[in-house]
Amino acid sequence: MEIYQERMVKAQELLAELDFDLMVLFPSSNMLYLSGFYDEPGERMLLLLLPREAEPIFLVPKLYEEQIKQESPFQDIRIWSDSDDPINLLRRTVADLAVKEARVLVDDGMWVKFFLMLREALPKAKFSLVSRVMVPLRMQKTPHEIRCLEEAGAIADEAFEEIIRSKIAGMTELALARALEEAMKKRGAEKIAFEILVASGPNSALPHYRAGQRRIEPEDVVILDYGCRIQEYCSDITRTIVCKEPSKEIQAVYEIVERAQKKAVQAIRPGVKAEEVDQAARQEITKAGYGERFIHRTGHGIGLDIHEEPYIVEANHLELRQGMAFSVEPGIYLPGQFGIRIEDIVVVTQRGAQRMNRCTHTLQIVE
Amino acid sequence: MEIYQERMVKAQELLAELDFDLMVLFPSSNMLYLSGFYDEPGERMLLLLLPREAEPIFLVPKLYEEQIKQESPFQDIRIWSDSDDPINLLRRTVADLAVKEARVLVDDGMWVKFFLMLREALPKAKFSLVSRVMVPLRMQKTPHEIRCLEEAGAIADEAFEEIIRSKIAGMTELALARALEEAMKKRGAEKIAFEILVASGPNSALPHYRAGQRRIEPEDVVILDYGCRIQEYCSDITRTIVCKEPSKEIQAVYEIVERAQKKAVQAIRPGVKAEEVDQAARQEITKAGYGERFIHRTGHGIGLDIHEEPYIVEANHLELRQGMAFSVEPGIYLPGQFGIRIEDIVVVTQRGAQRMNRCTHTLQIVE
Repeated sequence: MEIYQERMVKAQELLAELDFDLMVLFPSSNMLYLSGFYDEPGERMLLLLLPREAEPIFLVPKLYEEQIKQESPFQDIRIWSDSDDPINLLRRTVADLAVKEARVLVDDGMWVKFFLMLREALPKAKFSLVSRVMVPLRMQKTPHEIRCLEEAGAIADEAFEEIIRSKIAGMTELALARALEEAMKKRGAEKIAFEILVASGPNSALPHYRAGQRRIEPEDVVILDYGCRIQEYCSDITRTIVCKEPSKEIQAVYEIVERAQKKAVQAIRPGVKAEEVDQAARQEITKAGYGERFIHRTGHGIGLDIHEEPYIVEANHLELRQGMAFSVEPGIYLPGQFGIRIEDIVVVTQRGAQRMNRCTHTLQIVE
Repeated sequence: MEIYQERMVKAQELLAELDFDLMVLFPSSNMLYLSGFYDEPGERMLLLLLPREAEPIFLVPKLYEEQIKQESPFQDIRIWSDSDDPINLLRRTVADLAVKEARVLVDDGMWVKFFLMLREALPKAKFSLVSRVMVPLRMQKTPHEIRCLEEAGAIADEAFEEIIRSKIAGMTELALARALEEAMKKRGAEKIAFEILVASGPNSALPHYRAGQRRIEPEDVVILDYGCRIQEYCSDITRTIVCKEPSKEIQAVYEIVERAQKKAVQAIRPGVKAEEVDQAARQEITKAGYGERFIHRTGHGIGLDIHEEPYIVEANHLELRQGMAFSVEPGIYLPGQFGIRIEDIVVVTQRGAQRMNRCTHTLQIVE
């Protein structure tokens, strides 16, 4: 529980430094990071108020009372029940805090529904996003956090190694997604990190296609994009496989993506800008004539959220620092035909990058 | 695809009736309901703008372009890429729509991050929540929607029947959660509807406890609360079981909850108020001396969302109508000891209620 007290103190210091008066968190990775408590966001108001100089206050639906007392170290827990209107509790609480004209940071992912309540309770306040404070706190991972990322990555790697020893042609995408999930859970993964993507044949050309009822055919390219959580820290890996000897075009596009991924990882070290890593991958793909088909950024940060800062994207001048963790995942997508993507998570080290995924980049033929 | 055109027309009619100019949807069940497209909300701006009298406009990150063209019938799709700032596209679009001082409805679950962008693009607009339009559209289910709820319910029922034929003492809560998931998926469930709750022993007294590493012991009370999705429509069932002959107290509390659940279901018919159904369950539990231990509302609506209107709660004067679907799930929670909850989904019929869950309410002893 001490860790939460320490993080809270740091958050309050940053709040003071940036001259804000209050942070208001909603069920999110930010709430988990600062309090140890998390549940999926829901329609009941559940907020954590962190004033610059006073103790944090939880505003909690009655049915969470016992659970929050057990999971979080904070003492000031104020309860509302299903028969109350929660705005009354919110109004009383902000009155106690005397923050009428405050500068307030709100959780980036807070539902508008709750933000409008907050604005009603604090009509003279000025609101900005809490990422101003939380991103600097969370972006460089501690050794413990890196160990969690590494463990989550290793489980994803092992699941891949299991799957490529099986037979996949004839399976539906959903069945293969289930097999990946099962392979991770039996190795100790608590949860999957996000809905698993298995995109076969032409579906592989849609970067955010999930898994469906389509059956995998022998000539398909198949993209697997998945991960799990260890102590809520995510893994996220993508591998592209084929069911039989690939055509020359598939082979050629695969090799371009593989080279681009490698170049991007080689570009990483402290002091390099995020955009330069993106550029390293993009140049390689552009040079090969597929620049227009690399339709997304090169990567995203990872931690308690599957996507968080730093984003490895054009025009992001942020300088990389030791401990930052992110994906490197260039891809080429040919609509109606196929797509290729290769993704590893890396952590910035003193001199370069350490991969959290170690399984092979060589194109696997899985029958 | 026609269904989405029809729903869109109805939404526009309601928009006009309530004198709003524009609806702005975020990836949510509302977006799915009106457009056929859904993905998990993410950090990239993805909005559906529905003006009162013009065609809907999708604002879409480039990597979703192909997918949205395939999944949604709407033609006006405007793309931004990872190297653009999406607020520019948003500004241009609202300028095209000429809605500067508009009355705008925003998705209740939209992230503040995007709402602040919207407010920046439309500083003179007035914002309210889109549930004003979407709740009336979605609350009474069509026969097709009811068939989906029924199918999802039947799968949850069968999973329960499978589990009670197995041996659970000695399993961890997480392993039992996985077994429930597997039992639903092998019967055709596409997804689980929410993170499965398996709460054993004292954990059963925490209504929103998920599943953890605790091993189920022979004298435990175990609450199972889970569901799946069929065509994105949810099921949600709770059963409480024991591993050996229950103590007199457990038996007595179970019978109170069972009676309360039955009374509430018997109270349902068109014209009855939501609060009256809550009252029917609450009276039964209060009469038995456990009123203080029934720490949540009696139920929640269900459909594309696991929790939606109507809420079966004190002070909700809404009159029930045919086709409304919701849970009836009274519970009694004794902190540090055990909890009991029984939940079925019901749909309001012409004269009463039809259960979407049909498996037994008799206390099951599962060794």
